[in-house]
Amino acid sequence: MDNKLRLGILGGGGDSLIGVLHRVASSMHDKYRLIGGVFNPEHSISLDFGKQLGLDSSRVYKDLDSMIESEKKIDINDRIQVVSVLTPNYLHYPMAKALLENDFHVICEKPLTTTYNEAIELSKIKQSKKLVFAVTYTYTGYPMVRQMTDMIKNGVIGKVHKFDAQYLQGWLNPVVHEKEKRMSTWRLNPKVSGISCCVGDIGTHAFNMVELVTGMKVKKLLADLNTLYSDNPMDVDANILARLSNGANGTIRSSQIATGEENNLRISVYGNKGGLKWEQENPNYLYHLTDDQPLRVLKSAHQYNSEISNLSIKIPPGHPEGIFDSMGNIYHGVSKAINGQSFYNEEFPGIEDGVRGMDFIEKAVHSSKSGNIWVNLD
Amino acid sequence: MDNKLRLGILGGGGDSLIGVLHRVASSMHDKYRLIGGVFNPEHSISLDFGKQLGLDSSRVYKDLDSMIESEKKIDINDRIQVVSVLTPNYLHYPMAKALLENDFHVICEKPLTTTYNEAIELSKIKQSKKLVFAVTYTYTGYPMVRQMTDMIKNGVIGKVHKFDAQYLQGWLNPVVHEKEKRMSTWRLNPKVSGISCCVGDIGTHAFNMVELVTGMKVKKLLADLNTLYSDNPMDVDANILARLSNGANGTIRSSQIATGEENNLRISVYGNKGGLKWEQENPNYLYHLTDDQPLRVLKSAHQYNSEISNLSIKIPPGHPEGIFDSMGNIYHGVSKAINGQSFYNEEFPGIEDGVRGMDFIEKAVHSSKSGNIWVNLD
Amino acid sequence: MDNKLRLGILGGGGDSLIGVLHRVASSMHDKYRLIGGVFNPEHSISLDFGKQLGLDSSRVYKDLDSMIESEKKIDINDRIQVVSVLTPNYLHYPMAKALLENDFHVICEKPLTTTYNEAIELSKIKQSKKLVFAVTYTYTGYPMVRQMTDMIKNGVIGKVHKFDAQYLQGWLNPVVHEKEKRMSTWRLNPKVSGISCCVGDIGTHAFNMVELVTGMKVKKLLADLNTLYSDNPMDVDANILARLSNGANGTIRSSQIATGEENNLRISVYGNKGGLKWEQENPNYLYHLTDDQPLRVLKSAHQYNSEISNLSIKIPPGHPEGIFDSMGNIYHGVSKAINGQSFYNEEFPGIEDGVRGMDFIEKAVHSSKSGNIWVNLD
Amino acid sequence: MDNKLRLGILGGGGDSLIGVLHRVASSMHDKYRLIGGVFNPEHSISLDFGKQLGLDSSRVYKDLDSMIESEKKIDINDRIQVVSVLTPNYLHYPMAKALLENDFHVICEKPLTTTYNEAIELSKIKQSKKLVFAVTYTYTGYPMVRQMTDMIKNGVIGKVHKFDAQYLQGWLNPVVHEKEKRMSTWRLNPKVSGISCCVGDIGTHAFNMVELVTGMKVKKLLADLNTLYSDNPMDVDANILARLSNGANGTIRSSQIATGEENNLRISVYGNKGGLKWEQENPNYLYHLTDDQPLRVLKSAHQYNSEISNLSIKIPPGHPEGIFDSMGNIYHGVSKAINGQSFYNEEFPGIEDGVRGMDFIEKAVHSSKSGNIWVNLD
Repeated sequence: MDNKLRLGILGGGGDSLIGVLHRVASSMHDKYRLIGGVFNPEHSISLDFGKQLGLDSSRVYKDLDSMIESEKKIDINDRIQVVSVLTPNYLHYPMAKALLENDFHVICEKPLTTTYNEAIELSKIKQSKKLVFAVTYTYTGYPMVRQMTDMIKNGVIGKVHKFDAQYLQGWLNPVVHEKEKRMSTWRLNPKVSGISCCVGDIGTHAFNMVELVTGMKVKKLLADLNTLYSDNPMDVDANILARLSNGANGTIRSSQIATGEENNLRISVYGNKGGLKWEQENPNYLYHLTDDQPLRVLKSAHQYNSEISNLSIKIPPGHPEGIFDSMGNIYHGVSKAINGQSFYNEEFPGIEDGVRGMDFIEKAVHSSKSGNIWVNLD
Repeated sequence: MDNKLRLGILGGGGDSLIGVLHRVASSMHDKYRLIGGVFNPEHSISLDFGKQLGLDSSRVYKDLDSMIESEKKIDINDRIQVVSVLTPNYLHYPMAKALLENDFHVICEKPLTTTYNEAIELSKIKQSKKLVFAVTYTYTGYPMVRQMTDMIKNGVIGKVHKFDAQYLQGWLNPVVHEKEKRMSTWRLNPKVSGISCCVGDIGTHAFNMVELVTGMKVKKLLADLNTLYSDNPMDVDANILARLSNGANGTIRSSQIATGEENNLRISVYGNKGGLKWEQENPNYLYHLTDDQPLRVLKSAHQYNSEISNLSIKIPPGHPEGIFDSMGNIYHGVSKAINGQSFYNEEFPGIEDGVRGMDFIEKAVHSSKSGNIWVNLD
Repeated sequence: MDNKLRLGILGGGGDSLIGVLHRVASSMHDKYRLIGGVFNPEHSISLDFGKQLGLDSSRVYKDLDSMIESEKKIDINDRIQVVSVLTPNYLHYPMAKALLENDFHVICEKPLTTTYNEAIELSKIKQSKKLVFAVTYTYTGYPMVRQMTDMIKNGVIGKVHKFDAQYLQGWLNPVVHEKEKRMSTWRLNPKVSGISCCVGDIGTHAFNMVELVTGMKVKKLLADLNTLYSDNPMDVDANILARLSNGANGTIRSSQIATGEENNLRISVYGNKGGLKWEQENPNYLYHLTDDQPLRVLKSAHQYNSEISNLSIKIPPGHPEGIFDSMGNIYHGVSKAINGQSFYNEEFPGIEDGVRGMDFIEKAVHSSKSGNIWVNLD
Repeated sequence: MDNKLRLGILGGGGDSLIGVLHRVASSMHDKYRLIGGVFNPEHSISLDFGKQLGLDSSRVYKDLDSMIESEKKIDINDRIQVVSVLTPNYLHYPMAKALLENDFHVICEKPLTTTYNEAIELSKIKQSKKLVFAVTYTYTGYPMVRQMTDMIKNGVIGKVHKFDAQYLQGWLNPVVHEKEKRMSTWRLNPKVSGISCCVGDIGTHAFNMVELVTGMKVKKLLADLNTLYSDNPMDVDANILARLSNGANGTIRSSQIATGEENNLRISVYGNKGGLKWEQENPNYLYHLTDDQPLRVLKSAHQYNSEISNLSIKIPPGHPEGIFDSMGNIYHGVSKAINGQSFYNEEFPGIEDGVRGMDFIEKAVHSSKSGNIWVNLD
């Protein structure tokens, strides 16, 4: 019918927040058409939801296996091409694996997997295929994050010698202090959530942001993770010292007990020619500091921004775009990659970002459990 | 197929900013399906664009007349139900009129018409029909505007005794000072743009915001419009004194020569128990002042907000939603009205808001041309 | 003993806020030595206060007459040279007059007098003498106000075509709504406070700021003053339309019923090359806007600021100076004038600023009482 | 003559910034009279400066020894009572020691000494005397720092479980990257500046702030200090992990190479009932966060603030007070202590704060040099 990409979705049904985020994001640039998927483990619920979305019920499947089997039988020009994986974390690995092996492009929520080994394995499979694989570090789609990345790449702040990343939330505060509550939330249950709560859930975003904007790798870290109560096996707060590949020092700090904080992700990078600061809660501003000039506040959608920043906005300056738009930009980037159009690497985070995130989580936990020692990342 | 509303669009084709805004907004809550429309006066361009959107080309029409004629022949369960009018201002009136007369619901961009008389006439037709008619004052969809409205309605700031609204932009500055440029821009051509530039384009937003949040009408005004150059027939800056129906004093100030300002719409309302302030460029914050307590900063998506505010967000606090989300909330409200679901009056601006806006524009121009005298609104 | 200026003070005794402000300001730059004065109408209280300040009790006088008489007998090298007048408004005129006539330099609180005629008369006396006369519009001493003035003078924002000044307070809100309270406060008693409350007390600051930073005069105004209750003779809120001498439009808005506002004085000026904005409550920042460059935020004490701005700070960037420092800068300027050193006109407001303020007050009241008509300033 | 405290000053002559800060601070509350001192190692310069200040030249001394000797001969009612030590760091210890031993009260700039041992020794001498000893951690005098301290003490944020302190400056950036410059600045010369640059100069402020506002001690730390160049012996950047006495985790981060930062001292403290945040560059605001209520922004000088906060302001809300006022509050507190009036412990930092600071510096350097290990504070 049209030349939109045919999209399938796993998970994200009903009132799922992540579901609406991905659906809206996929539709924003008129590049995807949602065809079907598995929205809920219960097929009847999935079917109802599909109906509500106006989907052909024959494309709303019982499970991933039947989806793959059926889709493979459909003409290649009608078949689902790319699948978004929005299921609980422990399902990311098997689902993404099956999708890759059956030649579907994949858009996977973070964290990529529940262990570094799984991530590595997934990465190997991906390397062997000519497929696009995106990991939705949502905040990387903001135009001013991309502007920051571009400015650092172009030497605007000179050689980076210091960075500071924080991601502060407070939502676990009302949970963690009552034994019954902290023992019953799945977030603090390692069987469900893996080995880390705070670092895994949000520390990784801050880590990814550091590597994205500096264009460098974190070489080693020393982590101080806090579980707050001895019967709590999971970190709820983490202060991490780190070194970049060029030797620059910095911290990656995250917390879910910073009472009253909402989603306070900030990143600052300083070099010998200047500094840049960005805050997720006011995402359309970028602060540029120098030794001897007035602070410059760059805003999104201006001509003075770089190409990659300005292809990430839809309307003129002063009209705030938000997190749906940020995710929309990631989907837009993925569509270019799948369609073989030229695109910037920064337009979407790839499987290598997902792999790095898993390495970071495991090393942070290892460092902290070993008495706060320096540990190298791979 | 599904129970989404069948949407048609007039205008907004190609890279049109208003087009992407309405399309994304309509899709955000899974309540509309775009069926067809007339995207461009040139049919072939319109068809190409429809194809790009994946539309059935038989529903992409040459013009409104043929669209109406053809759609009327389509089974009522497949027929376009609601049409968004995104064409140049002077087409709003005839198009909206034809749509109403042929029983389509209408979502019309602002200003509603080019004259108050047209607006009145349109309003009469609408009254005679059981149809929904929305005027897209985009900013009214923000959750914290709705929160402000709700708080004032519930007496949180007591009896309103003062208000102050401003809408400052600077984009005309690079145009207006050069004779050639100012004589050639359609914005400053009354034949195309009607009798007012600044008041008509943005002053109306500020005016509408005042009436929305206070729940009162502007009773009279005294306007000081500025054309800056004597050969320029159109206002580019306007300072307006005003009175609300309860006697409260205030100003409605707008400008397109506030050099360097982007889209600086702000509204402050003060009563005997407190004050409330909101700014469009940081839309997820609402400032609540009192005589003797600390400033309270309300943020969107919190439990402490009212129902109408919280039905206007999609994800938790700290994840900024923006102008696409604001417009999405208006579309959502319209869908409830069309579907006969219960909804708040504040969920979308109606034709009466469009009519008030036209009255405001004409009275402001009249006041200023008459030597800055007080003029009553109807 | 030293070469500090010998200072006398009238009023400001005990816990008087204005007293501590002037005393600290006078001492900040080591240019004044407080010698004596009349701190209270009750001589014994005045003497006690003088003792507390460590003054020679023979220089603490019963009243101004005896002070003048006695000081004239003291050797010219020990005699008080400059006198600060901090008494209630109605005493400014007679006291300043007597001081001038007896050859004392004068630093007078604002408003200069209670009527325009008195101000004119005082000005004439001052012209006939080689004396320095300052009117303490406190906010003009801030380094970033001076920077703004300098930048506009140097054409940084081009030809000024728009301005907007506001001074919002809320402190009258708890008073004005109760009949008993509003009838008993001296602020709303014309016999004590003159013909205007809000315009006289704070509107004048905003007016003075407009004339200072633009370097132009307000040519005419149209005022909308609000008393809120018909039995209240005094304005508590004022929205004023105005024109500068070059024809630029703007508003001067002030209120004492902007509930919850503290001391929200702001001024914005826009020209064809840029805009500048300053806020009293965050006084060390100056915002510079242009059509096409990032917002520049200038901060006090940087090398990039002008000479007059940087002679108005005492310590490096990032160490906030406040209102005491601002007043200290005014005192510093006055000391240069008295000592015959070179100084900038902008270093302190003179009697002509006081005269302009009185003209503004009377014209604003006249305009409003005459039905909101345009009235020319002298 | 009067009952003001008789003050002497060591150092701070000429255009010294620290000199003007202390002189203005001492005069703000009319509690001190500057009598004399040693302003410069060169006696003639000192005498000239004393003359400029209007001092009796017989009280402007050649050196501290002669000052002590001469003052001891002066009648006790005229003798200097309290001495401010503003000399280079290495002189703090011998001068403060001599002053204490000769029964002068002391106000000493920070750092208290150059080694922890000296600090301990000074502390012992002080304990043996009935004298007041203040260490001027300037920022502790801000009213909203005192409000924060009071709120935490009163349990407003519950049990503290996390803190974060930063002090970022950028002024060393233009120095440190050029070998010649970094080898020649006294700040990076351990012989002059002691064992630490960044931690010693500003990290101590952040450390002191943490202990002040939480009312707890830092129990242990793990420091990551950065010299940036191997030939630079001094830290210019420091990220420090720390634990409070109640086990709460946090960081103390400081830098002098955060390019473009001015004096960005911030402190955040989170407990199970809420969080509090304060920033030195906007010192009159205090941010109070909770799980489920709007952000509260407290401002200085309001009735809702505590007694200790409100005795730290001089004028009503909305009139910014700054760093001179903050230091003035410390001087005010010291005057109460000397005069035997009741005062809050938080009104000035004492010698124990100075001792803690020296312990912190030495332990931070030790931790970092030992491979970033945990080290207990005494």
